[in-house]
Amino acid sequence: MTHPTSPPPPRTHLDNGGGAPWHPLAREALAQSLADGWADPRRLHAEGRRAAALLEGAREAVAAVLGARTPEVRFTPSHTASLHGAVAQVARARRRRGRDVVVGATERAATLHAAAHAADRHDGRRVLVPVDGVGRVDGDAFAMALGAPGVALAALQHANGEVGTVQPLDVVHAAARERDVPLLVDAGASVGHLPVPQAWDLLAADPADWGGPAGVGVLAVRHRTRTASDGPEDPDPWAPGGVSVPLAFAAAVALQAVEADRVAQDARRRALVDRVRASVATIPDVEVVGDPDDRLPHVVTFSFLYVDGEALVGELDKAGFAVGSGSACTAATLEPSHVLAAMGVLTHGNVRIALDRSTTSDDVDRFLAVLPDAVGRVRDMLGAGDL
Amino acid sequence: MTHPTSPPPPRTHLDNGGGAPWHPLAREALAQSLADGWADPRRLHAEGRRAAALLEGAREAVAAVLGARTPEVRFTPSHTASLHGAVAQVARARRRRGRDVVVGATERAATLHAAAHAADRHDGRRVLVPVDGVGRVDGDAFAMALGAPGVALAALQHANGEVGTVQPLDVVHAAARERDVPLLVDAGASVGHLPVPQAWDLLAADPADWGGPAGVGVLAVRHRTRTASDGPEDPDPWAPGGVSVPLAFAAAVALQAVEADRVAQDARRRALVDRVRASVATIPDVEVVGDPDDRLPHVVTFSFLYVDGEALVGELDKAGFAVGSGSACTAATLEPSHVLAAMGVLTHGNVRIALDRSTTSDDVDRFLAVLPDAVGRVRDMLGAGDL
Repeated sequence: MTHPTSPPPPRTHLDNGGGAPWHPLAREALAQSLADGWADPRRLHAEGRRAAALLEGAREAVAAVLGARTPEVRFTPSHTASLHGAVAQVARARRRRGRDVVVGATERAATLHAAAHAADRHDGRRVLVPVDGVGRVDGDAFAMALGAPGVALAALQHANGEVGTVQPLDVVHAAARERDVPLLVDAGASVGHLPVPQAWDLLAADPADWGGPAGVGVLAVRHRTRTASDGPEDPDPWAPGGVSVPLAFAAAVALQAVEADRVAQDARRRALVDRVRASVATIPDVEVVGDPDDRLPHVVTFSFLYVDGEALVGELDKAGFAVGSGSACTAATLEPSHVLAAMGVLTHGNVRIALDRSTTSDDVDRFLAVLPDAVGRVRDMLGAGDL
Repeated sequence: MTHPTSPPPPRTHLDNGGGAPWHPLAREALAQSLADGWADPRRLHAEGRRAAALLEGAREAVAAVLGARTPEVRFTPSHTASLHGAVAQVARARRRRGRDVVVGATERAATLHAAAHAADRHDGRRVLVPVDGVGRVDGDAFAMALGAPGVALAALQHANGEVGTVQPLDVVHAAARERDVPLLVDAGASVGHLPVPQAWDLLAADPADWGGPAGVGVLAVRHRTRTASDGPEDPDPWAPGGVSVPLAFAAAVALQAVEADRVAQDARRRALVDRVRASVATIPDVEVVGDPDDRLPHVVTFSFLYVDGEALVGELDKAGFAVGSGSACTAATLEPSHVLAAMGVLTHGNVRIALDRSTTSDDVDRFLAVLPDAVGRVRDMLGAGDL
């Protein structure tokens, strides 16, 4: 190993949506549960029963926060797996009643792909409901789409993880119940940050977003909602082979911890985001996107004209700040964000800031101090000064 | 919390197949990788790149042990997910060349179910190749079955995790290559215990079996083997949403550690198992099953007449010994073991012993000292004395 001669700059992590650092209590819970939770919870002996009890305790704790009954909560291998499984299993169970899948245009890629796959398998259609300029569907339009004949299920997120906008779940779920169409709510960007919505038939939540581990997901399915596995027979069709008991336990502990001071964190982070929004708006040729009020408390996204988003992420990274690219949820593909495209806003030159519970006011001030110069450097590199 | 007034009896864990305690180095690796591996490895900033580097290092380490190239190795959510995914993706890629799936009769339930599911989806058949009294397929018979027209793929385990018997992979893989039929080898009970076989096109291995964590699986796919996802589009069709980087890293560290002293552990555990086999054979009305020589070094299973297997597991558990039930791989269902049924041996009154690397000679002696009385008590409970 070689060591650099000068220490690296201090790091400030402002990319805490879907990938927040572990909550300190989650780390402790993991260490503790390795002692009791290493065994296979399906085994009959004392070690297996202890692991099973830990897993059941984790389900109970998660269910209490979600407003669900314990048997309604499942652990899955990932948030993506929750969304894939929910869409596939409901579509299969209801294939004689409907074939179409109605989804919001700014849903996560996993939901959009799962909807396309389910529609394709059952010879139906994926129906995209458009959003307005802040990224919100029209509740009545969504209700009309899911009320059409032949709809198997509908999916709408609670809040968008890229731009923060909250969706009108109450009106949509009321319409869904009236038409007997199950509604899948992706709360993967909101649980731990906003009050948990109760307007759902299936609710997916993401431990990696609230300071728990990646590698485990949470899916709640109301007992009245029919599902049918479309995979091989398995004792757990939502997580064939089971999940890591220590990870599930750490996820539950982290959720309890963040829920305990959620209201205080909401006010604190909302104020910080307001400061970011006001400060960024003073940089020339910028657009701050998403609803300014009815939104996630900790997320803000902005788009700069004459800027390449990936280059700006790299420039800020060199300055010690980790931020998300505008295509944060699909960074692997480096394609323009489908969310921003659906909103009709600038799809290039985006960065997303998502504040952690550990993010300080000083962190935000230092970020705002370097941002204008970073934008300027990227614009200079692109020769935008000549435009 | 209340505390019992007397300490519980010391525990001896002899159910280490597919659910061994974590190797001490795996625990250390997990703790270390939480510092560097918590971020989403798909993100572009320094934290994301560090997590990606950890994951890539884990792939390299696993590939080196498996005799594979790094790009051939995937992490999956579980060993079951590896087997499900391998069967489904090969069957789909080859659906125009064949529809049938050939499998050994004593394969893991996950493989048998995946084969049935794939055959059903493509209007083909699942062809079961029978085993002999020690649980071994006839190599020529397996070769003949996979050489029949219309075979999409074949699956045969390296060694059976319930009874230890090793399968004739070399002759079967030679035949498979000749007929251009991909062979999936389930090495989930053998990697870390026996030399890794090289006669495979897809190889699945189970970290939870070698002292690594549950909640992550390993699948190697030779570069020449065609696969096609049958699920929704995703950047990682083998693990949609990704896996836990710290778990994958811990799995790789554990594998390197156990491989480093595998030969010494082989001799030591083989001698202990020989002692168990000889001692158990002196108990009346017992059958020690599986091949006595060409087998896993650490596994032994025996069946007692006039004994309920679950009751015996419970009796030994009370005496401080954790052992597997004969239906170890399907304990959740409490059904008789399909492995033992396929071998034509007694399917009730079974227990399986799987020795960990930490199991001592003294542990085995104490177990052998309590076993005859435990069997006697269960027989008395069932009134076997009156038979």
